[in-house]
Amino acid sequence: MSENKDQTRVRIRVVFGDRGMIGPGKADLLDGIDRRGSIAAAGREMGMSYKRAWELIGTLNAMFRAPLVTRTRGGAGGGGAALTETGREVLALYRRMEDETAQAGAAQLDTLQGLLRDIPDEK
Amino acid sequence: MSENKDQTRVRIRVVFGDRGMIGPGKADLLDGIDRRGSIAAAGREMGMSYKRAWELIGTLNAMFRAPLVTRTRGGAGGGGAALTETGREVLALYRRMEDETAQAGAAQLDTLQGLLRDIPDEK
Repeated sequence: MSENKDQTRVRIRVVFGDRGMIGPGKADLLDGIDRRGSIAAAGREMGMSYKRAWELIGTLNAMFRAPLVTRTRGGAGGGGAALTETGREVLALYRRMEDETAQAGAAQLDTLQGLLRDIPDEK
Repeated sequence: MSENKDQTRVRIRVVFGDRGMIGPGKADLLDGIDRRGSIAAAGREMGMSYKRAWELIGTLNAMFRAPLVTRTRGGAGGGGAALTETGREVLALYRRMEDETAQAGAAQLDTLQGLLRDIPDEK
């Protein structure tokens, strides 16, 4: 939200053949659940419907040997959600891949940016 | 088409802030134009409508300092399309980034794959 308009980012999508994929959306959702302790709140943050957020978590939970997200009981709100150990591991691996990618591709990225058309300042 | 069902791939998407992005779709389309010498044929190969392929090329051509794709005159088919020098350069940089990413993230990728649920062999 406080993102620089000119900020260049590289996003990655890991496709495990027919076994599923993980990309920016699922990673950000896991991140949100970790921060907010709730699937609904994490989805809302991303402008994602409750149904869609649950579907993505269902897909992720079925994709790996162990679930990535677990429901937590109790609390006034009737229980939330949290990342499991596997969930934290998968998210950390994905974020590490993003970092490595940004570093590995830094030279090409600079060259690509230099080829972009200049946009006159708006406002 | 001859892709292994279990093959794991990492795809990248470079987002230049508000100035546009290039991802697997645009890169594959440039690739197809280079091989086929025609925007329509390249789009068809990807199951993309003629309109959509033209839109993507229009976006790319406006995004960079110089067009990436140029129309070629003549020939029985009424002229085709080819990559410009800038087009080749952008595509090569993108492909290099993909390669660097795969190398840089190889360790994490192995670990992620090891966390996937085993799928019983079908057929």
